[in-house]
Amino acid sequence: MKAAGVVVEYNPLHNGHVHHLKETRRLTGADVVIAVMSGNFLQRGEPAFIDKWSRTELALRSGADIVFELPYRFAVAQASEFAEGAIGILAAARCSAFCFGSEDGRIGPFMNTLRLLEDQKAVYEAEVRRLVKTGISYPSALSRAYLSVADAEKHQDPLADLTKPNNILGFHYMKAARSSGTGMTAFTVGRTGTGYHELGADPDSGIMSATAIRGAVREAGITDEVLRAVPDHTVRVLNGFREEYGQFGGWDRFWPILRTIIIRDGALRLGNIAEMTEGLEHRIVRAALAAPTFTGFMEAVKTKRYTWTRIQRILTHVLCGMDSNEFSLFREPRYLRLLGITQAGRSYLNLYKDDFGLPLVSRAASSDDPMLATDIRASDLYALGTGEKPGKDFRTPPIMTG
Amino acid sequence: MKAAGVVVEYNPLHNGHVHHLKETRRLTGADVVIAVMSGNFLQRGEPAFIDKWSRTELALRSGADIVFELPYRFAVAQASEFAEGAIGILAAARCSAFCFGSEDGRIGPFMNTLRLLEDQKAVYEAEVRRLVKTGISYPSALSRAYLSVADAEKHQDPLADLTKPNNILGFHYMKAARSSGTGMTAFTVGRTGTGYHELGADPDSGIMSATAIRGAVREAGITDEVLRAVPDHTVRVLNGFREEYGQFGGWDRFWPILRTIIIRDGALRLGNIAEMTEGLEHRIVRAALAAPTFTGFMEAVKTKRYTWTRIQRILTHVLCGMDSNEFSLFREPRYLRLLGITQAGRSYLNLYKDDFGLPLVSRAASSDDPMLATDIRASDLYALGTGEKPGKDFRTPPIMTG
Repeated sequence: MKAAGVVVEYNPLHNGHVHHLKETRRLTGADVVIAVMSGNFLQRGEPAFIDKWSRTELALRSGADIVFELPYRFAVAQASEFAEGAIGILAAARCSAFCFGSEDGRIGPFMNTLRLLEDQKAVYEAEVRRLVKTGISYPSALSRAYLSVADAEKHQDPLADLTKPNNILGFHYMKAARSSGTGMTAFTVGRTGTGYHELGADPDSGIMSATAIRGAVREAGITDEVLRAVPDHTVRVLNGFREEYGQFGGWDRFWPILRTIIIRDGALRLGNIAEMTEGLEHRIVRAALAAPTFTGFMEAVKTKRYTWTRIQRILTHVLCGMDSNEFSLFREPRYLRLLGITQAGRSYLNLYKDDFGLPLVSRAASSDDPMLATDIRASDLYALGTGEKPGKDFRTPPIMTG
Repeated sequence: MKAAGVVVEYNPLHNGHVHHLKETRRLTGADVVIAVMSGNFLQRGEPAFIDKWSRTELALRSGADIVFELPYRFAVAQASEFAEGAIGILAAARCSAFCFGSEDGRIGPFMNTLRLLEDQKAVYEAEVRRLVKTGISYPSALSRAYLSVADAEKHQDPLADLTKPNNILGFHYMKAARSSGTGMTAFTVGRTGTGYHELGADPDSGIMSATAIRGAVREAGITDEVLRAVPDHTVRVLNGFREEYGQFGGWDRFWPILRTIIIRDGALRLGNIAEMTEGLEHRIVRAALAAPTFTGFMEAVKTKRYTWTRIQRILTHVLCGMDSNEFSLFREPRYLRLLGITQAGRSYLNLYKDDFGLPLVSRAASSDDPMLATDIRASDLYALGTGEKPGKDFRTPPIMTG
C-alpha cells in the first residue's frame, strides 16, 4: 500500500481542507492519506478552537486514514521546526509522498526557491543576520533576505512567494524532506478562495479561512455562510463541543489562567521559559498586571522585533510550563502517537507498523517517553482551560471510523 | 503614649475578637492597640474569607488603632515563625505589651511552660527528634514530647495545654518576646464560648468561632445566629465583599487555578516550592490529576506525617509561586506595612515613627523591598482568584477611620 502525508491543524476543518485531502489522494495516487496534526495548541501559538479528538474525527471523515499527533515540541514552534517534526513523522510512517497547500498550486517555484537558497546559502544567511540586527523580526529578515538574493541573482525561473504563510510552511516541508534523505515526493495543491490572513470571506464561494470561520462562529454562531464553508460533520462536531464545554478554545478563554501564571511566576522564573528572549519577560509581567483582556495584553507586549505569533508561542510555553531545558531536550520526533484511524488506515498499520522508523503509540499509558509526557501535560492544561477534566489522553482510545 | 500589640487574622472578625481588643486595652492600660494581621493568606494555609483591606476596616472599627500587615513570609508559616514575625513587628513598633487569646485566660501556666521547656531543653528536643522519626507529624511530636517532659518532672505548677491551637500560638508569642529581649509584657485573655475547631456553635451565646461563621455564611448566608455573633460592621463588610466579588475567598474558589498550576509545574518544579517535603510533590500531582474538588484532593494528599494545615501552607506556596530560595531569603521582618489607622493611631505614628525599629511603609510604591514584593504578589494572586484586578496594594492608601 502506498501512503501520502499531509500536515494539518484543522482549526476547524473546512471545505478547502476537504479539497486538499481529495487532491492529495488523486495527485499522489496513494492508497491511504496520513495526517500529522497539531494537538491542542497550534503553530500560531494558540489554544485550538476545538480539541484534538474533535479535529481527528473531522480529519477521518474528510479523507484522512490515519491521524498522528504532532508533538507539542514541534507543533508550537517556528515554521522550520514545525516542518522538521511533521516531515520526520510522515517519513517514519513510510509515506512516499506528501502534499501541502500553497498559493498557486505549482511545485516548480518551490523547487527553484530551494535550489536558489542552497546555492546562495552563505550570502543568504549573512543577509539574514545583518537584517536581524536592524531590529526587525526574524521572519521579516528571512523574507527580505530571500527577496534580495532572488533579486541579485536576477533569477529567471519562477520562485515561490515566501511572504505567504502557507508557502513558507511548504518551503520548509520540502527543505525538511530533502534533509531527511527519504526521497519523499513533494506535491502541492492550490488554495482556492480566501487567503490565510483575510478575516472576511466571500459569502457565496463556500470557502472561508479557518480564521474567518472561528470569528464568525464566536460572533454569531454557525451562520449560513459558515454552513456553506464547512462539511456537515464540522457543524456537528462544533455544536457538540460547544454543548459539552460551553465555549470554544482560544486565548480569551485561557487569559485569566495565563495572567495568574504570569503574575505568580514573575520575570525571574519566566526568564526560563522556552523561546523567551531577553527583556520580554519584563514586558509580559508589566502588561499582565495592567491589562484586563488578552488583546489589551498583546497590544502592550508586542514590539516590531517579535511577530505576534512568536509572542503567542512564548505565551503558550508559559501556560504549559515549557521551559528551555525541556524544550531543547529533543530535536526529533520519538514516536508516532495515533489519534485516529479508518479501516484502510488500520490495514496500513497492520502491514507496516513493524517497519516504521519510530515506535507506534496507540495508548498513552503504554509509553513513558518524556516527550509524550509533555504532550499529555499540554493536553491536560487545555482540558482544564475549557472546563474538562484532565487525563483524557489516558481515557481516549484512537478514534475509529469506517 | 503606650502601645499594646495583638496578633490577628479576623477571618472574619467576631464578638470574641471585639472582646479581646477591649480586654487588651483594659489589661495593659495602653493608649493605642496595634494589630499585626495576616494578609490575604492565613496561617492555616488558606486564602482569607475577605481581603486584607476589608479585615483592616473591621479591626479599626473594633478597637485597633493601627493595623500592620504580617508579611507573607511569616503569615503562611508554622506557629514559631508566625510568632517571631508578629512579635518582631510589634517590638519594632515600640509596643510595651502584647495580649493574646488563650483557653483559660491565665498567663501563669504559659510562664511555667516556658520555664520548664527552657530548663529541659535538651531532653525535650531529643524527645521531639525521636518522635518525629516514628512517622508522626511535627506538631504531634512537639505536643507529646512536652507531655512526657512535664510528666517526668512531676511538675507542680499548672502548665499551659499545648494541644490547643491558641495556646500553641500564645506560647510561641511569649517565647519570641523573650528571645527578642525587648521586655514586652505578656497578657492573655480567656476565650469565651466556642473552641477554635468546633464547627458548631451555641446559637444563643453570641459567640461563634470564625470557622463556624464562615461555614454558616457559605451555607446559608448571614443567618440570625451569625448576626448575633459578629458586630454590625462585620455584617456590612461581608455583604459588601460578596456584592463586589460574588463569592468569598477559600480553597474551593482557588482550586481550579491551583489545580492548573500543579499540573503545569509537575513534580520536578514543585520540588522547589517552599516547605515541600520529599515525595509530597508526587502525591500532590497525582491527586490534582484525579480530584475534581479541593476536598477530594486534600483527602488524597494527606498522610499522618503531615498536618492538614501544613499541607495547606505548602499549597499556598504553590499558588503564590513561593519557592525555597525566596522563602529562606529573610528570617526577620524588614518593614512595618501600614494597612490602616485611627486618629489615635495617627498621633502615635507621628510621635514615634522615627524611633521605630523598622521603616514604616505607608505606600507600597515607596518601597522596593523584595519581601514586600512577595506580599504584593500574594495579594495580586488573591485578587485574581476572587475576580478582582491586581495592583490593589498600589491603588489603596491606608484605611483611615475616626
